[in-house]
Amino acid sequence: MGKALSAVLFDLYGTLLDVHSVAGRADQLFPGRGSALSQLWRDKQLEYTRLRTMSSRYVPFTQVVEDALQYACDALHLPLDSAGRGLLMHEFTQLTPFADAVPALQRLLAADLTVGVLTNGDPGQMEDALHGAGLDDYFDVLLSADQARAYKTAPAVYELGPLTLGHPAAELLLISSNGWDAIGAKWYGYRSFWVNRSSAPIERLDGQPDGIGRSLSDAVDFALRLHSGGKS
Amino acid sequence: MGKALSAVLFDLYGTLLDVHSVAGRADQLFPGRGSALSQLWRDKQLEYTRLRTMSSRYVPFTQVVEDALQYACDALHLPLDSAGRGLLMHEFTQLTPFADAVPALQRLLAADLTVGVLTNGDPGQMEDALHGAGLDDYFDVLLSADQARAYKTAPAVYELGPLTLGHPAAELLLISSNGWDAIGAKWYGYRSFWVNRSSAPIERLDGQPDGIGRSLSDAVDFALRLHSGGKS
Repeated sequence: MGKALSAVLFDLYGTLLDVHSVAGRADQLFPGRGSALSQLWRDKQLEYTRLRTMSSRYVPFTQVVEDALQYACDALHLPLDSAGRGLLMHEFTQLTPFADAVPALQRLLAADLTVGVLTNGDPGQMEDALHGAGLDDYFDVLLSADQARAYKTAPAVYELGPLTLGHPAAELLLISSNGWDAIGAKWYGYRSFWVNRSSAPIERLDGQPDGIGRSLSDAVDFALRLHSGGKS
Repeated sequence: MGKALSAVLFDLYGTLLDVHSVAGRADQLFPGRGSALSQLWRDKQLEYTRLRTMSSRYVPFTQVVEDALQYACDALHLPLDSAGRGLLMHEFTQLTPFADAVPALQRLLAADLTVGVLTNGDPGQMEDALHGAGLDDYFDVLLSADQARAYKTAPAVYELGPLTLGHPAAELLLISSNGWDAIGAKWYGYRSFWVNRSSAPIERLDGQPDGIGRSLSDAVDFALRLHSGGKS
């Protein structure tokens, strides 16, 4: 029997929001290339967050996202003018929530658990994205890597959970569809659940998430089992 | 007029040695998939070095390379048995040097510059790789990220240059075909040169290398200009 669960934190980009919902708009701008652009844009966002974190060269995620977009267009030989840049950057604030997000959040709220977000996004970007997705009423706490001036998987980012919530990491569950984030949280001391929507292989890193499933619904099942298990 | 150049350090994997020379062997094991495996294997190596560095979860690069190989085979649905793993891990110690490596090193040695390696590879792995490539007689100093228990672009790795050589970073030139490495070195205070063999776009990070060219010959031209410029 584990300790009680005090709160559930969700990763945002890729977990609650589909970062690849930009592909449609990108395909209008660059016919036939939207999917390739969306993929490289995302990969490069992550790469830049990591390089900047290792080298203590933090800039807010909005800047990282714009830098990554420029690189991705350069690499794919797509001519990005300022109108196109504006359109795609705006699109990134209007990402589509996954269909299982609202039902999952509603079940957690009904269970009287503290629910929050822990994201690489900066505060303005996160708030725009949650508002755009109709998710702004579901969270007790919004935690941004910007407060740590570092990106996941730096311990300073995961530390925001215990610091803000006043509970040890072992009483917090991080839910992420990024396998490396679920492991990074576990490394820090959280419990974690990996939403593996695409049946990706497990990351070959030390340690594994406490739970793995296919959907946010699976993640909430896991959270509620932990919550009731810890209490009984 | 800049300061004198005291030493030239080379990145190893991708700069002196072609990491994708494993593709041939991989293609024998997994016909038609060698190139895809080589690419994902390499990408995953870099990702794991960064996640581990951010989270202070260092393991030697040999382990990272093996973990990345397993992930890449899982992701590509390639059945890797222990014999295949052994073959490919051995192949990684026998990478082919780029054709311009030996001529470039010979020109630097003739110019009476201190020449070294600064690599993510661990010492045994680096020595095997240099020996396998016939490059073991060209270096005054071999610096491994293993001494810092972190990977590039962590400052602790670049710090090995000034610490070992007794010259400030501004008197050292790092030559790398990894654009992010050339920028990471620059961030630390080195001069740097990016060998951009594939005409990749520049990385959208703060700062840029001091020089960019297409070959190790271009890099040595740059080093020798710095060397004579600093003296005159």
